[in-house]
Amino acid sequence: MGPATKTVTLEGRFQMHRAGFLESPTMAYETWGELNSTRDNGILIFSGLSPSAHAASSAEDLSAGWWEDMIGPGLPLDSDYYYIVCVNSLGSCFGSTGPASVNPDTGDVYRLDFPTLTLEDVAEAAYGVVRHLGIEQLHTVIGCSMGGMSGLAYCVRHAEATQNLISISSATRALPFSIAVRSLQREMIRSDPKWMNGNYDPQDPPLNGQRLARKLGMMTYRSPEEWVQRFGRQRTTATEENVNDPFKIAFSVEAYLENHANKFSGAFDPNCYLYLSRASDLFDLAEHGGSLQSGFSRINLERALVIGVETDILFPLQQQRDMAEGLSAVCADTKLVELDCIRGHDSFLVDMDAFRPVICGFFESCGS
Amino acid sequence: MGPATKTVTLEGRFQMHRAGFLESPTMAYETWGELNSTRDNGILIFSGLSPSAHAASSAEDLSAGWWEDMIGPGLPLDSDYYYIVCVNSLGSCFGSTGPASVNPDTGDVYRLDFPTLTLEDVAEAAYGVVRHLGIEQLHTVIGCSMGGMSGLAYCVRHAEATQNLISISSATRALPFSIAVRSLQREMIRSDPKWMNGNYDPQDPPLNGQRLARKLGMMTYRSPEEWVQRFGRQRTTATEENVNDPFKIAFSVEAYLENHANKFSGAFDPNCYLYLSRASDLFDLAEHGGSLQSGFSRINLERALVIGVETDILFPLQQQRDMAEGLSAVCADTKLVELDCIRGHDSFLVDMDAFRPVICGFFESCGS
Repeated sequence: MGPATKTVTLEGRFQMHRAGFLESPTMAYETWGELNSTRDNGILIFSGLSPSAHAASSAEDLSAGWWEDMIGPGLPLDSDYYYIVCVNSLGSCFGSTGPASVNPDTGDVYRLDFPTLTLEDVAEAAYGVVRHLGIEQLHTVIGCSMGGMSGLAYCVRHAEATQNLISISSATRALPFSIAVRSLQREMIRSDPKWMNGNYDPQDPPLNGQRLARKLGMMTYRSPEEWVQRFGRQRTTATEENVNDPFKIAFSVEAYLENHANKFSGAFDPNCYLYLSRASDLFDLAEHGGSLQSGFSRINLERALVIGVETDILFPLQQQRDMAEGLSAVCADTKLVELDCIRGHDSFLVDMDAFRPVICGFFESCGS
Repeated sequence: MGPATKTVTLEGRFQMHRAGFLESPTMAYETWGELNSTRDNGILIFSGLSPSAHAASSAEDLSAGWWEDMIGPGLPLDSDYYYIVCVNSLGSCFGSTGPASVNPDTGDVYRLDFPTLTLEDVAEAAYGVVRHLGIEQLHTVIGCSMGGMSGLAYCVRHAEATQNLISISSATRALPFSIAVRSLQREMIRSDPKWMNGNYDPQDPPLNGQRLARKLGMMTYRSPEEWVQRFGRQRTTATEENVNDPFKIAFSVEAYLENHANKFSGAFDPNCYLYLSRASDLFDLAEHGGSLQSGFSRINLERALVIGVETDILFPLQQQRDMAEGLSAVCADTKLVELDCIRGHDSFLVDMDAFRPVICGFFESCGS
């Protein structure tokens, strides 16, 4: 947790959506800007699976956040006008209670005793943070990737809790291809002998399984088209250590994946990853009332914006169209923006020039 | 090897394309039909990475082959007219010499002492089989997937050795995305502690790594669209053994991958897989003369047929278009057929109704 991250204890028994409960879980969050006197300028951000609450720098924490160019004075999420809150998802490992936290009932780390996590739980815990901050109704909920599903859960469970919704590269529920990808990522981690059925030594976690899972992740977060432009068939040069390895890294794209995987793997708790990954598979808006239509009918919004990217293979464009269609049945002012970014699912993190004007446009038309 | 599979020893020192040699390697092959008196009705089939030479049943082996509905009397590859030969690729493990074979110079299994394998070597060894069978010029070379690249290598190295070429769901060289997929598959196998740097016990091979690699394979061999139709979000029921496993298989798509992976993993030698996988990455037609154009200029064909599938993510349609364009510069009678099959790269194995008429049409127009 960075110096700008705050925490709040959600006092009492936190009932989980499927079964079980957490005793007084902690939620980590970060804020930018000030809540106005009418308490109607709050924006809540749900991140994707892996980021922390540190979405952007501030006076208290100068380090860049995961959505650095999006949040701040004069930026699309303008902290001069809005009070912006980003939560670390329940189940994660950056200050919020998750499988790597100590269970106060036993004094032991939860590990696999953590109850089944759903994105409804992620939404509900964020709702607790928002209420703690004194906000009855948010101006806008923004959800990116997995966070878009958390955002839908938020809107379904608390129909009056936000005026507007922005969904970025998300879905009403995962496709079988995306489930297959995440299932295999989880299996890679669980196949690492160091995982030890979840009882790994935190100082010696299943890093290799995490590295493999991250590489598969990167293949679905970016796009084949980007890699043609960026790497083509460019080669690396053999290093002294690997000159006799017949399967050594030989192509630049392999080196790129290796570097990314090594950066990520130590930074995220493996059990937390497994729980959040599974939660992404489990979410289905249709479970709220028995059909997607009934799920959408529980949502009450003034305005909705759905953004998707042409080259996204994890949450493809068709899912954005389906989401926009479903939302427009209950929210006349629903807009769909299809971006032709080449960097796939991750575009919202790396192709800021494409995303900033769209987010800006949304808030400008809100009259800020 | 099945009862219909024959072998031939390519006597002498077999010089490998990159470096090193094999001492009198063995090649396994199967044939259907009879060579005619003018010796001009020969068809050579290069398979994808994993199949054996047993492409179809025959009187000597009634078991179904990997291209069962394509080869036989009255079928598209009509054994009443043609003498059809399918080789097990050099480097594989179904009768041809590969990393799982014994090195006659040492008496030990090659394992990682096998020299670097390229698809030029696969082509050259097949050329040895064809010459052994008394054929100077083939009627047609057919290559599927990796085999299409082996087929290109065959045509480049022996410009007069075939009249016609059929390339199915292949490419002039792999995309970085496909390289990334195969690189990760190799890493999964090599990360299995049982791999032991290639020195695994053949009775206790790195099955888990192979299972993981096969699952990733299936994700790229089929298509997300197929899985939406076939599985959607259908669930499996928990079995008694896994009821307490929080990450147990829950969706039908996960069970499907598990079944496929278990079927495949024991059947293929891991080191052979690694070598053939790497050979697929390494092949680049442009290495023959310094550019794709110069590579194509070494090919001499009367007719060429390039077939691709819209939903193929491993060898996408654009690569088929590029291949057809390159071939048409040197072979006026080049035809491109784009099929709208939903089952992705594997369509040529499973969507026979779409492929049979195209292959039939090719041979009918040859006047057979």
